[in-house]
Amino acid sequence: MSHQEIIDKLLSGEMKLYQVDKEVDAKEATDIRREFLEQKYDLDLSNISNYTLDMERASARNIENSIGVLQLPMGIAGPMKINGEYCQREVFIPLATSEGALVASINRGASTITASGGANARVVSDIMTRAPAIKCEGVSEALKVKQWFVDNFDELKAIAESTTSHGKLIKIDPILIVGSYVYPRFVFSTGDSMGMNMVTIASEKILDKLAEETSAVHIALSGNVCVDKKPAAINIVEGRGKSVIADILVPKDIVAKKLKTTAEAIVEVNTAKNLVGSAASGAMAFNAHYANMVAAIFLATGQDAAHVVEGSLGITTAENRDGDLYFSVNLPDLPVATVGGGTSLEVAQEGLNILGVAGSNHAKEFAEIVACTVLAGELSLVGALAAGHLARAHQELGRG
Amino acid sequence: MSHQEIIDKLLSGEMKLYQVDKEVDAKEATDIRREFLEQKYDLDLSNISNYTLDMERASARNIENSIGVLQLPMGIAGPMKINGEYCQREVFIPLATSEGALVASINRGASTITASGGANARVVSDIMTRAPAIKCEGVSEALKVKQWFVDNFDELKAIAESTTSHGKLIKIDPILIVGSYVYPRFVFSTGDSMGMNMVTIASEKILDKLAEETSAVHIALSGNVCVDKKPAAINIVEGRGKSVIADILVPKDIVAKKLKTTAEAIVEVNTAKNLVGSAASGAMAFNAHYANMVAAIFLATGQDAAHVVEGSLGITTAENRDGDLYFSVNLPDLPVATVGGGTSLEVAQEGLNILGVAGSNHAKEFAEIVACTVLAGELSLVGALAAGHLARAHQELGRG
Amino acid sequence: MSHQEIIDKLLSGEMKLYQVDKEVDAKEATDIRREFLEQKYDLDLSNISNYTLDMERASARNIENSIGVLQLPMGIAGPMKINGEYCQREVFIPLATSEGALVASINRGASTITASGGANARVVSDIMTRAPAIKCEGVSEALKVKQWFVDNFDELKAIAESTTSHGKLIKIDPILIVGSYVYPRFVFSTGDSMGMNMVTIASEKILDKLAEETSAVHIALSGNVCVDKKPAAINIVEGRGKSVIADILVPKDIVAKKLKTTAEAIVEVNTAKNLVGSAASGAMAFNAHYANMVAAIFLATGQDAAHVVEGSLGITTAENRDGDLYFSVNLPDLPVATVGGGTSLEVAQEGLNILGVAGSNHAKEFAEIVACTVLAGELSLVGALAAGHLARAHQELGRG
Amino acid sequence: MSHQEIIDKLLSGEMKLYQVDKEVDAKEATDIRREFLEQKYDLDLSNISNYTLDMERASARNIENSIGVLQLPMGIAGPMKINGEYCQREVFIPLATSEGALVASINRGASTITASGGANARVVSDIMTRAPAIKCEGVSEALKVKQWFVDNFDELKAIAESTTSHGKLIKIDPILIVGSYVYPRFVFSTGDSMGMNMVTIASEKILDKLAEETSAVHIALSGNVCVDKKPAAINIVEGRGKSVIADILVPKDIVAKKLKTTAEAIVEVNTAKNLVGSAASGAMAFNAHYANMVAAIFLATGQDAAHVVEGSLGITTAENRDGDLYFSVNLPDLPVATVGGGTSLEVAQEGLNILGVAGSNHAKEFAEIVACTVLAGELSLVGALAAGHLARAHQELGRG
Repeated sequence: MSHQEIIDKLLSGEMKLYQVDKEVDAKEATDIRREFLEQKYDLDLSNISNYTLDMERASARNIENSIGVLQLPMGIAGPMKINGEYCQREVFIPLATSEGALVASINRGASTITASGGANARVVSDIMTRAPAIKCEGVSEALKVKQWFVDNFDELKAIAESTTSHGKLIKIDPILIVGSYVYPRFVFSTGDSMGMNMVTIASEKILDKLAEETSAVHIALSGNVCVDKKPAAINIVEGRGKSVIADILVPKDIVAKKLKTTAEAIVEVNTAKNLVGSAASGAMAFNAHYANMVAAIFLATGQDAAHVVEGSLGITTAENRDGDLYFSVNLPDLPVATVGGGTSLEVAQEGLNILGVAGSNHAKEFAEIVACTVLAGELSLVGALAAGHLARAHQELGRG
Repeated sequence: MSHQEIIDKLLSGEMKLYQVDKEVDAKEATDIRREFLEQKYDLDLSNISNYTLDMERASARNIENSIGVLQLPMGIAGPMKINGEYCQREVFIPLATSEGALVASINRGASTITASGGANARVVSDIMTRAPAIKCEGVSEALKVKQWFVDNFDELKAIAESTTSHGKLIKIDPILIVGSYVYPRFVFSTGDSMGMNMVTIASEKILDKLAEETSAVHIALSGNVCVDKKPAAINIVEGRGKSVIADILVPKDIVAKKLKTTAEAIVEVNTAKNLVGSAASGAMAFNAHYANMVAAIFLATGQDAAHVVEGSLGITTAENRDGDLYFSVNLPDLPVATVGGGTSLEVAQEGLNILGVAGSNHAKEFAEIVACTVLAGELSLVGALAAGHLARAHQELGRG
Repeated sequence: MSHQEIIDKLLSGEMKLYQVDKEVDAKEATDIRREFLEQKYDLDLSNISNYTLDMERASARNIENSIGVLQLPMGIAGPMKINGEYCQREVFIPLATSEGALVASINRGASTITASGGANARVVSDIMTRAPAIKCEGVSEALKVKQWFVDNFDELKAIAESTTSHGKLIKIDPILIVGSYVYPRFVFSTGDSMGMNMVTIASEKILDKLAEETSAVHIALSGNVCVDKKPAAINIVEGRGKSVIADILVPKDIVAKKLKTTAEAIVEVNTAKNLVGSAASGAMAFNAHYANMVAAIFLATGQDAAHVVEGSLGITTAENRDGDLYFSVNLPDLPVATVGGGTSLEVAQEGLNILGVAGSNHAKEFAEIVACTVLAGELSLVGALAAGHLARAHQELGRG
Repeated sequence: MSHQEIIDKLLSGEMKLYQVDKEVDAKEATDIRREFLEQKYDLDLSNISNYTLDMERASARNIENSIGVLQLPMGIAGPMKINGEYCQREVFIPLATSEGALVASINRGASTITASGGANARVVSDIMTRAPAIKCEGVSEALKVKQWFVDNFDELKAIAESTTSHGKLIKIDPILIVGSYVYPRFVFSTGDSMGMNMVTIASEKILDKLAEETSAVHIALSGNVCVDKKPAAINIVEGRGKSVIADILVPKDIVAKKLKTTAEAIVEVNTAKNLVGSAASGAMAFNAHYANMVAAIFLATGQDAAHVVEGSLGITTAENRDGDLYFSVNLPDLPVATVGGGTSLEVAQEGLNILGVAGSNHAKEFAEIVACTVLAGELSLVGALAAGHLARAHQELGRG
């Protein structure tokens, strides 16, 4: 079939979008689907059509029914000095966003951090989890299933690890029981990949074993005790992805010069807004805007945008130490990767390369950078609120 | 200065990233900053350099320290029939993601929906909020400040609305008091823009009036009772952005044919996972993966990626109606826009045009489409879990 | 039948516990059931048998299958000076508890408060709520039901208020929709009674009207959007029962003398424990031990012990004001009464009389007293933690 | 001093309430304080004065500034058959409450359970926790403190256990870090006592060791990661006190006969109210009224009434199994004891004796009974809602 013949079949409904891939290669299929939309709705989609990424590879891994590529502006903030365990140097941070003033704000925070000697960062834990929903006859059987997981841990670990070269089953904990349902939380280390697929496949093998040996049935491979892409207290308490903490001590004069305010005022804002305000509104996140920084650096480095939900969680603290400002962020639930998934896309590779963290053995280093980026943006916004000029900044820089 | 001279100054630290904009136009500044990174780190950032968007305009509105553009694959799902109040037609949904299998999954849901006669959708409320943190001497003064807001509502409404052509101050409610802090939640309607900047500016004017007339001081223009980009119960209860609900009745035979399962099995998965599992893990979201669909359509249409956090909230319900499947999603906290912010970017315009919702008077229609897209993806995943083939689907389609 | 004949029938299983009431009066029935237990298990229940309350009346209102009376020690704290809107005087607070050191701790707080000139208290709102679960065909019908409640508010108000002499239907708000379920939150003022029964009966009449006029059916008279006796964010945001706030400014020298610590140390404890600690553990209450004070004064005054759950919610704040200590509590969800329910019991009347708040027109005054009692206990414990002597106090005073 | 002389000094303010104990014995001091109130306010407190408990002992352990005793009606429900691991027999349940209809409702549930062959119950975990707030210089020191706890666990365990004959330090987990704060959660087993004082004293010894060996300082012996007497997700996920589950399979005909409804209707109520309704209102408890049953049995057996807050948490599930009703409760956070604290009071002993669980080696058995009592009350209320007669039941039985 010719290019237009296929489009005609799409227009008439004879052919479905995904069937185009059976006729032509990924790049042409992309063009055909886009042109179908252009003809159907009389549109010009020429910006979507502009791309350099390898659509053949993307179609095999990252997208179906491709029509082209999103363009989102990228900016850069830095240099920001980081005194991590894994990252001990200055970085420039690539950020993809359409929110005016965000990059400038992060840049201001980075500048404050660097002037103060650099931000400290530590990875507290590094896990990925999957927790299926399993069903039993009732509570006494459920307790036996729980015990089965405890008793057979070594064998289940071997089974799980047979499915992956990088994943390790660290523990099955907690194992929650509600009525006839059992939710064992499989906790893995997954190296430098984010690891959701890895742990899903490994978990399925464990469940095959359960099916062989017991009468329990698994209702769903994910039972929302994992918890993936939802805000959840269990992830705050137990951690998920990387759990990272970062802080900075900003000398009094730098608070004044860079942030135009005082440690005292910043502590007051942090208490009134991030602690008491969040508590009063039933918020699960006790910070000003982690989600902004997490979204911008996630997009620029090929992370999953839906994981911004988890990355938005965490608590900001501020202390007035004799006029100097102690300021910290904690990100208990930050799923990040330097290999696999969206990180293999061309621009993501470039984003990771700017940070020097593409490929294996860099995930914790990257996590430290993300945490310090969050620290920079948080410090800048809380500082700006303290200095009373949020709205003015937006009037000048953003026009959303 | 020549192009390379500027780069040299960046390399030596003599010049800062944002200062480049004072020397050259936005497009060249973009090139210079990118080349600075290429030279500094010996990198090739040619994919980032490839773009068609108007960087001059983007630099004025959406990005600072630009270095180019992110490319993220876009796919399309549909047709999906929608029986909304505002959207009553079939749509093809543009989606930007790097998560393999997501577009295919949404497409399967859309196909199921269309085969069932289309999804119902309704916008329940449409507001944008800002809640500053105000400080008083103590509880009795705080109560007076609360009363001041109640007593002066008409005047404050006039003041707020003098700053905007589209925004309307609907109410100030609730007005929370914690100790010496008061958090009045200013509730606006903002038309087709997302409205955060609009309400921020209007709120500041109200606070100027408060400062004139009382001794209360405002600590922070946002006091986290708004609550922006954080998961928060107040937004679930009171709504924020668009509050949208959508549902579908899938006939028994279509459940079997399209989803390879039964209504009974889907109800069981929904109860075990989305309701009980979420409750057991202290999750604030009672669904399978709203965040995935919200992220993909948000990115493809110029919404703020950080708002995925709010969009991830909501409850999925499923009922077995004599073998037919009733299935619903609710999204109480969905900030979306068809004008302003990132929606003015070229690709976002194209994305909105594919949906037929670019520009004014389309925000509620767009919100219905987002809700139905979430419905499609949720139906497909819960169906897949019920059919027991999540991991297999990932093995075949995704390789993350 | 004779006393022993009835016991024999109970022992043999021929008669059920509640059937005893058909044979003899409440007092004798109480004796018979207790003696049945004594004979069945060879026990001495003589302490339970000791009571002065009118068992005839209690059996008609407060208890079924009575066997006697619980004895729980009562102590007294005070005098505590209160500068409320309704309570402007010194009070002695009756407290019923078995937790050693609690009364002493509250007493210490009361003493600190009185020495500082008295605690301020204000009632911010005063409502009681009931929210049934209603079922429709789907989201579009649900939105119509929501609109029905809005459109018919005046008539529904008249219907509701026809069932009660004290209750007033203030509003129906919010009206939440999830899939086919609608949850209208009926918000009443209920005068001096706690009001749950009143609003339940009134709500049922509204639902009768709904059944007449629409095809929606009510699934449950309470749909857990009320929310009664569960910790819930909606109650924190919207208030339930009395919402009360109280605070105190403790001069620096009194902090030192009475609490053996400093404002700075108390602020640090409050931040580390009540704000950050609660946030980190996913707690819904941001205080040290409201539940202790609420339980002790609730029991001593005839409130419902199960309402301690709601009374445990709230946020404590502390500020260092140039060495003086500003300290506050907020209790958004405090269901209290001075008439009806358990308040009519003899000891409860005596407890309320000690406070001078028995009977009508005293509920708000009582709510202020409860809040100040919470303030006293909270101030004392946070002060003790700051002074580092919690465990020592327990070693000396409590032996649990 | 004579009796009246002391009263006069109290009236004039020359003497404080607690100073009375230095002049006379506990019983007379009790009379004096009560008479002081009677004279001061011209009251008759004769009901409070009526008691049989040993006030000398109570004053040493349970109460300060005693004035007498609370009388709260006690009723009895049962027989209820329990098929637990520890409790395998029929019980009659003592309940102290002033809420009309509650005992009758529990009794109806117990009758349904017994007719169905008895309720199953299992204790899933049994711990008591204390988590102090510790302060360091910053995140890198905090991580070292965390590691210090891990590295020195054996020694810390020995130290902790040297302070108690029954308590065992099981683990220190999780150890949360937020900025400069560290919250190690000390997890103990405490035998048959509730254990809060035991773990507080043991924790202090651990902190003494920390102070010796590191520069970290402890801010508060309890840092609200414990979490005591507050609703908290960490307790739901990790458990606290006893974690207990209970269930029952009620045959179809018994559902009809005893509950006047169907399994299908009960499942619908449970979904609409306990699952979806709680989710929609941001509730932390997914049940109908655990707090009622927990409060009534706690009071009757000498448990701490403030622990009703924790006992109110949990999820109720219901399933329609071919017309039979599967119904379950889970109580992840139930602090109970059969020795120590309020259990040593005379009436509490009698209450525990009715259940056959007074004294050592009975705490788990008692926990199973509490869970089954909750099951009975929950089943009865959800059944009543399903049968549509809640309000009528209240009109007939309760007059609150």
